[in-house]
Amino acid sequence: MPFLLPDPHSTLRLHLNENTGGCSPAVVAALRSLDARDLAAYPNAAPATAAAAKYFGVPTDWVQLTDGLDDGLRAAAEVARVRRPLDAGVTPAAVIVDPTFEMYEIYIRGVEMDIVRVPADANFEVSPDALVRALSPRTRLVYLADPNNPTGRPMPDGAALRVAEAVPDALVLVDEAYAEFSGRTHIGPALESHHNLIIGRTFAKAFGLAGLRIGALVAHPDALAPLGRGLPPFSVNVCALRALEAALGDRDHLAWYLAQTSASRNLVYEFCRGRQLTCWPSETNFVLVRLGEAAMPAVKALAARNILISPRAHQPGCAGTVRITAGLVEHTTRCLEALDAALG
Amino acid sequence: MPFLLPDPHSTLRLHLNENTGGCSPAVVAALRSLDARDLAAYPNAAPATAAAAKYFGVPTDWVQLTDGLDDGLRAAAEVARVRRPLDAGVTPAAVIVDPTFEMYEIYIRGVEMDIVRVPADANFEVSPDALVRALSPRTRLVYLADPNNPTGRPMPDGAALRVAEAVPDALVLVDEAYAEFSGRTHIGPALESHHNLIIGRTFAKAFGLAGLRIGALVAHPDALAPLGRGLPPFSVNVCALRALEAALGDRDHLAWYLAQTSASRNLVYEFCRGRQLTCWPSETNFVLVRLGEAAMPAVKALAARNILISPRAHQPGCAGTVRITAGLVEHTTRCLEALDAALG
Repeated sequence: MPFLLPDPHSTLRLHLNENTGGCSPAVVAALRSLDARDLAAYPNAAPATAAAAKYFGVPTDWVQLTDGLDDGLRAAAEVARVRRPLDAGVTPAAVIVDPTFEMYEIYIRGVEMDIVRVPADANFEVSPDALVRALSPRTRLVYLADPNNPTGRPMPDGAALRVAEAVPDALVLVDEAYAEFSGRTHIGPALESHHNLIIGRTFAKAFGLAGLRIGALVAHPDALAPLGRGLPPFSVNVCALRALEAALGDRDHLAWYLAQTSASRNLVYEFCRGRQLTCWPSETNFVLVRLGEAAMPAVKALAARNILISPRAHQPGCAGTVRITAGLVEHTTRCLEALDAALG
Repeated sequence: MPFLLPDPHSTLRLHLNENTGGCSPAVVAALRSLDARDLAAYPNAAPATAAAAKYFGVPTDWVQLTDGLDDGLRAAAEVARVRRPLDAGVTPAAVIVDPTFEMYEIYIRGVEMDIVRVPADANFEVSPDALVRALSPRTRLVYLADPNNPTGRPMPDGAALRVAEAVPDALVLVDEAYAEFSGRTHIGPALESHHNLIIGRTFAKAFGLAGLRIGALVAHPDALAPLGRGLPPFSVNVCALRALEAALGDRDHLAWYLAQTSASRNLVYEFCRGRQLTCWPSETNFVLVRLGEAAMPAVKALAARNILISPRAHQPGCAGTVRITAGLVEHTTRCLEALDAALG
């Protein structure tokens, strides 16, 4: 397991972009209403799927709930590999931005595609022209995180659609895990006209359901239906399904958390200005900060105080950076105080 | 969704081999102890994995928990496809018994292997010689359900090991979803010497955790480690992990349910003797019964009384059969009374 997962009550986990405030109390109440028979019965995903479709503003058959968005990302790769076969001996290729969410490479390797990386610039901006140039007749899959991780930066307007139009034989998965923070989404008329465009969403981040494992793929049914082949039946558990309905019913909790993250990002920006550190404006619940040579010592100093932040130096262009979850103001304040002390 | 999933409180679901008595009260209590932060944090599978390993009597690194056993079956197919590559243009093959658990075909098709079916005899007994004859240099995957579904019949002693020895280039997955009922398992010294043998287990059946989605793959680490590539991180949710620890700690509940299933099977056998119906001795929590032409009318008559049983006529050798979950005696009695009325 490459992840440090200490008890979230005793350790401030700001390294995984979790909602450290916790999910809505309505979710906790919904789970406590489940009895021994509910837990023993294979779950019916229909009501939660309908609730998610309503939230996304699409018909129910445009939504496939998944065991966390990760399982949707994986299943999309499986389907992309077999959807439009290449000649024998030709290896399909998948295109990703660099840096981006690291799991994409795992899922691409899992289906034995070649990986084509499109470097972001020094400021982590992505060029749509560079994306399109990276496409080829071998392209079968494109993962685009919007906003991107670990940078928090948006994909340029229209880039995903240009890519989807350029490679109709590929699935283009736009990972909008942080869409509630960005306030932007590709869910809309573009999905009507682009049947190779799939939008990935998760309820792990803004809705705080990471422990329950529930995400969604949203697309035209032509794109979505084949994904069923990569997903076992009943892959989303009954707790997650009930939790999703409850979470979607408590928009006040969501609004509260979004306001907290906005204030927290500003605290991080302000901290960086005060210390003349580079950071990047983020559309997510995290901020990437360049600490330079102080990065690893700071990560360790914070860990000694039970505060985890995520060193990112191993990713391209990210030398000396750390990614800090910017969630609750009280947690951000604690982290920045500790960071202040660590930087001396 | 090919499954009827009405509320388990108002409908007696005897068509999916669920534990209709519900899981242990200790599981319900464990879930009620989870708070909003536990639910919002990515789950740590280590304690539940250790508890499962102890239950299976193997070291911890011999166990991979999965999002229901289904996800383990799927992931095994993914790995089997790429583990020992064939020459370009040669399609790998997967071997299954016929009839067997229908999801195997879905997972095999998902990885584009050819399906080789080994017919059971008229009494649903499987010939080890026939199994071995079905193997070829193209074989990369073998699914063996022991006991089998929908028949409840055991795999012959030693058959799985003979197969594993005959095709070292294939993964041989022995699906022991019903092992608590059969009292038999391949977990033991055979796994030390057969690194292509993987045992699938689930906590959905005897432990009544179907709604929570948790299964396990048990194998030598050489066999198990590559399976990680087919499984996203955090694929098992926090509720299932906590539930598993609680369920494994309440062996009295397990013993009670096993006694109920044993008594229920006997009630079904007795009913069949009384009506001169053929049924097959089962090592599971279900019994396959041949009703002949009365099968579909009986299924419908029971459904009208909110009792679901599973018609199996579409499976080879299963003309006129139904599969009835034999769980709680009170539920079996209700079902058999309704069946008695339906058969006139």
